[in-house]
Amino acid sequence: MAITMAAARRLLLPSCGAMSLDLSLSFSRYISSGLREERDTFGPIHVPADRYWGAQTQRSLQNFEIGGARERMPDQIIEAFGILKKSAAIVNMEYGLDKKIGEAIVKAAQEVAHGKLNDHFPLVIWQTGSGTQTNMNANEVIANRAGVILGLEMGSKGVHPNDHVNMSQSSNDTFPTVMHIAAAIEANTRLLPKLHGLHQALAKKQEEFKDIIKIGRTHTQDAVPLTLGQEFSGYTTQVSYGIQRIQATLPRMYQLAQGGTAVGTGLNTRKGFDKKIAAQVSKETGLPFVTAPNKFEALAAHDAFVECSGALNTVAASLMKIANDIRFLGSGPRCGLGELNLPENEPGSSIMPGKVNPTQCEALTMVCCQVIGNNVALTIGGSNGHFELNVFKPLIASSLLQSMRLIGDGAESFTKNCVVGIKANHARISQIMRESLMLVTALNPKIGYDKAAACAKKAHKEGTTLKEAALALGALTSEEFDEWVDPTKMLGPS
Amino acid sequence: MAITMAAARRLLLPSCGAMSLDLSLSFSRYISSGLREERDTFGPIHVPADRYWGAQTQRSLQNFEIGGARERMPDQIIEAFGILKKSAAIVNMEYGLDKKIGEAIVKAAQEVAHGKLNDHFPLVIWQTGSGTQTNMNANEVIANRAGVILGLEMGSKGVHPNDHVNMSQSSNDTFPTVMHIAAAIEANTRLLPKLHGLHQALAKKQEEFKDIIKIGRTHTQDAVPLTLGQEFSGYTTQVSYGIQRIQATLPRMYQLAQGGTAVGTGLNTRKGFDKKIAAQVSKETGLPFVTAPNKFEALAAHDAFVECSGALNTVAASLMKIANDIRFLGSGPRCGLGELNLPENEPGSSIMPGKVNPTQCEALTMVCCQVIGNNVALTIGGSNGHFELNVFKPLIASSLLQSMRLIGDGAESFTKNCVVGIKANHARISQIMRESLMLVTALNPKIGYDKAAACAKKAHKEGTTLKEAALALGALTSEEFDEWVDPTKMLGPS
Amino acid sequence: MAITMAAARRLLLPSCGAMSLDLSLSFSRYISSGLREERDTFGPIHVPADRYWGAQTQRSLQNFEIGGARERMPDQIIEAFGILKKSAAIVNMEYGLDKKIGEAIVKAAQEVAHGKLNDHFPLVIWQTGSGTQTNMNANEVIANRAGVILGLEMGSKGVHPNDHVNMSQSSNDTFPTVMHIAAAIEANTRLLPKLHGLHQALAKKQEEFKDIIKIGRTHTQDAVPLTLGQEFSGYTTQVSYGIQRIQATLPRMYQLAQGGTAVGTGLNTRKGFDKKIAAQVSKETGLPFVTAPNKFEALAAHDAFVECSGALNTVAASLMKIANDIRFLGSGPRCGLGELNLPENEPGSSIMPGKVNPTQCEALTMVCCQVIGNNVALTIGGSNGHFELNVFKPLIASSLLQSMRLIGDGAESFTKNCVVGIKANHARISQIMRESLMLVTALNPKIGYDKAAACAKKAHKEGTTLKEAALALGALTSEEFDEWVDPTKMLGPS
Amino acid sequence: MAITMAAARRLLLPSCGAMSLDLSLSFSRYISSGLREERDTFGPIHVPADRYWGAQTQRSLQNFEIGGARERMPDQIIEAFGILKKSAAIVNMEYGLDKKIGEAIVKAAQEVAHGKLNDHFPLVIWQTGSGTQTNMNANEVIANRAGVILGLEMGSKGVHPNDHVNMSQSSNDTFPTVMHIAAAIEANTRLLPKLHGLHQALAKKQEEFKDIIKIGRTHTQDAVPLTLGQEFSGYTTQVSYGIQRIQATLPRMYQLAQGGTAVGTGLNTRKGFDKKIAAQVSKETGLPFVTAPNKFEALAAHDAFVECSGALNTVAASLMKIANDIRFLGSGPRCGLGELNLPENEPGSSIMPGKVNPTQCEALTMVCCQVIGNNVALTIGGSNGHFELNVFKPLIASSLLQSMRLIGDGAESFTKNCVVGIKANHARISQIMRESLMLVTALNPKIGYDKAAACAKKAHKEGTTLKEAALALGALTSEEFDEWVDPTKMLGPS
Repeated sequence: MAITMAAARRLLLPSCGAMSLDLSLSFSRYISSGLREERDTFGPIHVPADRYWGAQTQRSLQNFEIGGARERMPDQIIEAFGILKKSAAIVNMEYGLDKKIGEAIVKAAQEVAHGKLNDHFPLVIWQTGSGTQTNMNANEVIANRAGVILGLEMGSKGVHPNDHVNMSQSSNDTFPTVMHIAAAIEANTRLLPKLHGLHQALAKKQEEFKDIIKIGRTHTQDAVPLTLGQEFSGYTTQVSYGIQRIQATLPRMYQLAQGGTAVGTGLNTRKGFDKKIAAQVSKETGLPFVTAPNKFEALAAHDAFVECSGALNTVAASLMKIANDIRFLGSGPRCGLGELNLPENEPGSSIMPGKVNPTQCEALTMVCCQVIGNNVALTIGGSNGHFELNVFKPLIASSLLQSMRLIGDGAESFTKNCVVGIKANHARISQIMRESLMLVTALNPKIGYDKAAACAKKAHKEGTTLKEAALALGALTSEEFDEWVDPTKMLGPS
Repeated sequence: MAITMAAARRLLLPSCGAMSLDLSLSFSRYISSGLREERDTFGPIHVPADRYWGAQTQRSLQNFEIGGARERMPDQIIEAFGILKKSAAIVNMEYGLDKKIGEAIVKAAQEVAHGKLNDHFPLVIWQTGSGTQTNMNANEVIANRAGVILGLEMGSKGVHPNDHVNMSQSSNDTFPTVMHIAAAIEANTRLLPKLHGLHQALAKKQEEFKDIIKIGRTHTQDAVPLTLGQEFSGYTTQVSYGIQRIQATLPRMYQLAQGGTAVGTGLNTRKGFDKKIAAQVSKETGLPFVTAPNKFEALAAHDAFVECSGALNTVAASLMKIANDIRFLGSGPRCGLGELNLPENEPGSSIMPGKVNPTQCEALTMVCCQVIGNNVALTIGGSNGHFELNVFKPLIASSLLQSMRLIGDGAESFTKNCVVGIKANHARISQIMRESLMLVTALNPKIGYDKAAACAKKAHKEGTTLKEAALALGALTSEEFDEWVDPTKMLGPS
Repeated sequence: MAITMAAARRLLLPSCGAMSLDLSLSFSRYISSGLREERDTFGPIHVPADRYWGAQTQRSLQNFEIGGARERMPDQIIEAFGILKKSAAIVNMEYGLDKKIGEAIVKAAQEVAHGKLNDHFPLVIWQTGSGTQTNMNANEVIANRAGVILGLEMGSKGVHPNDHVNMSQSSNDTFPTVMHIAAAIEANTRLLPKLHGLHQALAKKQEEFKDIIKIGRTHTQDAVPLTLGQEFSGYTTQVSYGIQRIQATLPRMYQLAQGGTAVGTGLNTRKGFDKKIAAQVSKETGLPFVTAPNKFEALAAHDAFVECSGALNTVAASLMKIANDIRFLGSGPRCGLGELNLPENEPGSSIMPGKVNPTQCEALTMVCCQVIGNNVALTIGGSNGHFELNVFKPLIASSLLQSMRLIGDGAESFTKNCVVGIKANHARISQIMRESLMLVTALNPKIGYDKAAACAKKAHKEGTTLKEAALALGALTSEEFDEWVDPTKMLGPS
Repeated sequence: MAITMAAARRLLLPSCGAMSLDLSLSFSRYISSGLREERDTFGPIHVPADRYWGAQTQRSLQNFEIGGARERMPDQIIEAFGILKKSAAIVNMEYGLDKKIGEAIVKAAQEVAHGKLNDHFPLVIWQTGSGTQTNMNANEVIANRAGVILGLEMGSKGVHPNDHVNMSQSSNDTFPTVMHIAAAIEANTRLLPKLHGLHQALAKKQEEFKDIIKIGRTHTQDAVPLTLGQEFSGYTTQVSYGIQRIQATLPRMYQLAQGGTAVGTGLNTRKGFDKKIAAQVSKETGLPFVTAPNKFEALAAHDAFVECSGALNTVAASLMKIANDIRFLGSGPRCGLGELNLPENEPGSSIMPGKVNPTQCEALTMVCCQVIGNNVALTIGGSNGHFELNVFKPLIASSLLQSMRLIGDGAESFTKNCVVGIKANHARISQIMRESLMLVTALNPKIGYDKAAACAKKAHKEGTTLKEAALALGALTSEEFDEWVDPTKMLGPS
């Protein structure tokens, strides 16, 4: 029965209406060998013969044609389901799950954890707000895959998606659990290491630039001097604090809902199940997961995600500031501030030869916008839980995971393609610093604020140097000026 | 019975707990002559003797001690209640309201409309989400004031807050009605005229600067030239479109909920009441108000406010861009871009003589942040209505009114204290434009892209002018360069 | 030279660091026949032999490893580039572009417009903020594809990406142009038709439910009655206004930047080019595009996107309200409001037999959160343009397109899988409406407010019906009660 | 020279245009005795004779007429300036400030710290983004007040605003310092204690309700039972975590910028000044302030505020959830869920006798919207700092202080006027719990999932009890049903 998926859906679902092009495109590649029948309590339904998913996945696929393939549930969630289902099988075997079945589940779940079965998870984020359908997708895929491992036919339910794979679990506790697992892994394996990389690169520049004296700017206007290293030390500090901010939210991210089942009471679990499973997940991941002290909160709210997103929102504000500074300090080459030379990574313009643009700053600041927007999306979802369950889980999960990924990757790209290659334009920095009228500040204690002001205003009005103006006014001698107006003495308390 | 309000509240409300300092401070001035008793269906309660408000206002005052005096319901809402209650009395007299009472209500309501009784409206935004308490505040104040006009004692209910002042009305339709009245007045009397003022000032600068050729900047980097007038024409266009955007939302703002009463059905009104009252409000205000075609939508949703806030959000994005450009173009005086001289309105620094800051840009961009934030606040409130009533009305009203006021005032302040006084720094503009390597673009059709690129790169590397580099490379003659590299020919299509 | 892409990148780019797993996964399928060399002004670089893209695309691919394959530039942008490049070739032939080359570009661009070459557009959103790299991706793919059509080798530049495909264009005007084309098409082909579908389904329910009298709820508390049809009329009105709101933003969306080139002046175009190209795009798409009156605004700001997103934000607030109402009215079956029966589309729970959840409401409200969040992301990007160019273009484009797509698809899914199948639970609606104490309101004019209040309070306190309480108090006769307390008379003005 | 302020402004400022009504109203009360002349480097200017402020305050008053009196700088900022200026005088005396002058400054600053001179701080938030004008307002008021204490005339500058009061300081370090002082005090004296109060009240209800078994609801649909105490334990946990979240941000809030002066270098301070002043502020406030390790970050970024606002944003999401639950659980009295009886604090409706509304929930959820919106406003401001100074300081300060105040006051109002008075409606809770079909879940292990499902579906279809259906199907005996279907056994793991 060679039949394209798109055709299949049309045949099977006459009421289904127009299908979105790219979903059908993306699913067409799933099809090579026709269809098979799966069933759930709603009856039989056809699924692609070469996919492990079952009836409930297929129903969701048909009922939620929203946004196309790029809106699929994030891979990190799928992979965390692999970790969780493996852990559950291991604990369930302690409580009586048949060893043969349990071991097969462990193997199949491990494949999911390693991302090997991602193509069998076609569902989008915009499904039921509990993530039940993706939980069932995981149950169905693992059950069928475990069955195949045991030599059974797909759809046989010899390994049962509910009774075996989902044993002692409910979507209402598994989905928040995988949310926490996925976010904690993302934070530890991508986000934080990449922010550390940025921190190190900035710290290196801070050191490299520590003796370069430059004009300071407040209100975007000329002010008194500082070193370029001091300026970069502000960035270094921001990133360092950002890392601390994210880390400070992790204790609550390490709390797992597993064991709460349907409403938080733990109905249909055995005593101790929650602690054992948190311990097993911890062992699988090497991260300090614990069981959530209050399961009602863990199902009905996702404040831990709102909190963590708030930390990312802060990091986004920091990175926006840093990237903006760097692009403005690097503006030019002739008509801008021109204090920094940024690496040239690609041609900037097909019309204008030699044009180089601060493209890494641009990518990073766009990322920051999305992260700030995601924080709003996720906060609204987080605020709208009702009673025993928040049903904005897939949105909340995907928003935070996207924010983490983008900040992590954005920071790394910015580091390696921009920060490490930044060079100071010594000549320019030195030249404009010396031209600055604000050096007059050093004369306040010598000739008084009023006479100093007169010098600055005269120089500004007549376009001369400060020294010329000061000498013309007879405020001091040339030697005095050179001794007193010394930027190297203006870099710290006296 | 001379007694401070703070003391009175403490005496009368033993369970009330700690009172916030500034509420009691702000109310203390209301007290000069002790207390009197008012009553509602919950029984008697003391109110300040010299205030027109009654029992329900007093209860709200005690039950919602949130945020202090600066969080009071906006004056525009109070004044719109004056307009509405006057209009209602006029229409109700047609339907049988006693003339003597009706006329007294008209007089009292007129005083409210003129802002003369604002001190009798002490309630904060953070009260019941229907605004019922402020509606009752209006009813009570107008009833007592009308009573006094008729020679009655305060609290006598000879003019009854519910039976007479609130006749044929419900908070559920009056509050959305005053929201729309207040916003439409604010838009027409403050917001739009002030944006028009900004538009005119920018258009004048556009004309004034039309012959000043300057370097363009893309990606904040040097690009090909344009005139300063062309640059300002972008700003002029943004403001012009912003005005259109706001105006485009007004048709739905002119729809009044009045006549829907409790749930939108119009129970307890007479046929035609809704149209008559819209006509009367229109007459009072000179604005084209109509009755809302669907009262259910008008009570249960405030999409018209979300929509209008979206237009303000867009204007905020525009003004942020304009103000940022102006502060960067005016940065310096020696170490920035320095193309514009902004008016000097105040000393910039106590340490640094002669420092002038783009303070109007700063105020305006802060305003824009608040407007963008308010749009989020108001959208969340707007999305959270349930069944027949949205109960985030005071928040929605105050957010939009604040945004309108801030954009209006901010635009006016920016106009008169900054835009009208902007001067072009001709010398600087001309100098850096001539130094720009991007003028090389004009040579592409003459000597080819590759040779042009070689000139630009040589000049960049060696820090020479483009002409020097071109001559050194023997790419053209001095005369050819002067003829071909002519910024005045680079300002439009050929 | 059979070599995987992942391996190729590692070999060629020793400094490149760790590659993200899913990018390499997604690119691995591009590789079947090794690599070829392409070049740009930065020199030679290897690209996959079977891909049409060239050097600049490849550089971006390597320099912006942010977010993986799901963050690729939206297909709608790619397809709009097809439309634009085709139109440009047609107009350029009028201005002297070689016919043979021009016709080949037309053919190749048509394939891009039809989505046939999407696999040749690997770049992510998070690249240069001008979208230059995706413009060059389009130029390179079309040039190579057109070359192949003409029998040339890939990389030969017989059809040149810049000189021919990008003729008279700059990324700075093409990218905003495709943003507008893509958004206008999305609005007209998906968003608005699907919202119309929702509107029709709601209007049908409004009619179907027009005689079902039910209790109204304000403040979520029992209030006076209305019909279920009246309640739905509020939703119908909201969606109807939402459609108007989106349409009201389209005039500015139909303005195209094309012809502004690098900074808005139109340097290197011929007079009339801008109008001709807008006319051609209009012809290709059947939509009323015009050339933007002010090109400076069109490059430097994306207020049209912020504005349109504001309309979507309003629609999101509307849909959130509607979906929330429907899920609460359908709550139960035994312990909720239970007034509506929602369609059962899938099993609700593996533990709890018979459980049906309002999953379509959940997907839709999650979509609304994302749209509200995107509005913030996009507004921040829109507010941060500097000088002649806004460099948050890809973010702004992708945010709006995602919002449009999600609202469109979400509305359609909600319509077909929920709204059309909603049934009123007549028995329940009627039962609780009759139990409501708020029917007492009808007695106000008969027995007075105070006695009516006494009846309601007695019934509430003793848990009896209103009638029982009224008779017990001797307030009226049984016949009088039945005549006066008639919900059918409470549905409109008298 | 008795003259109203409004008139004065008009006379002195002919170019000033229309003045906003409420500013002039609010300032009119400042005027009782005419005007006096003050001067700064811009020359002389008239100020109200009975106000302590000087020339720079007056200029700001005239240059920033934005938003009217309700937009004045928050009192907490003014009072924190009192603390800071007192501390600075004490430290400056160690470094040589004249004792007599120093002591007078200490006394005057103490009055500011106690809020006694708030009427002398007329400036609005929307001024220069560094807060310089409010710093000068503080300097001028304290200088004049200290002068008066020493028997000098106002305006004499015997105590100089810059040389003495602002000694060793710059607005660029004082304003961030008072931001941190104000926020830390607000957190410790209002926000956290009030959240603790809410936590205690919820914990008490959790205990009070611990034996009341009720139906759980997931997806707003009937689910398996839990106790009302368990449900409240989720709320208690949320508030408890919220307190932790806020506290976790305070370490960075305790870091003071003071000592950084103009650009962070500490120019014009003496070594050790920064540490001494932090110690003095700590002594004045009893809070653990320290000097910021990196002053460049402390001036150029306000990430500590963005971070703290993120915690408040999380608390807002929590409180929204809790308040929504409580209003829905309290909905009715006849046609809602009706599980809780909320306190009746005021009449709910003038039309509908006996109507009581969840008004405290409404005020609190409106507050949450504003806090979420403020988080966006403040984040945008925080992300837009440039170079050595963030110039969105007043916005950032006022947004966070408003959010803190509103959450604190809102929580307290909600606690005392709602939470403490919540009563469980035992009869209703018990009745609907027993009617729930989801109790069938307990039969799964006894009669199997399929037969259990059949019982539930039959009961649902026929509107009978579960027991009736189960007996009719012969699935078990009446005794078995009563033994097995026991909600008291469904409240935890087995």
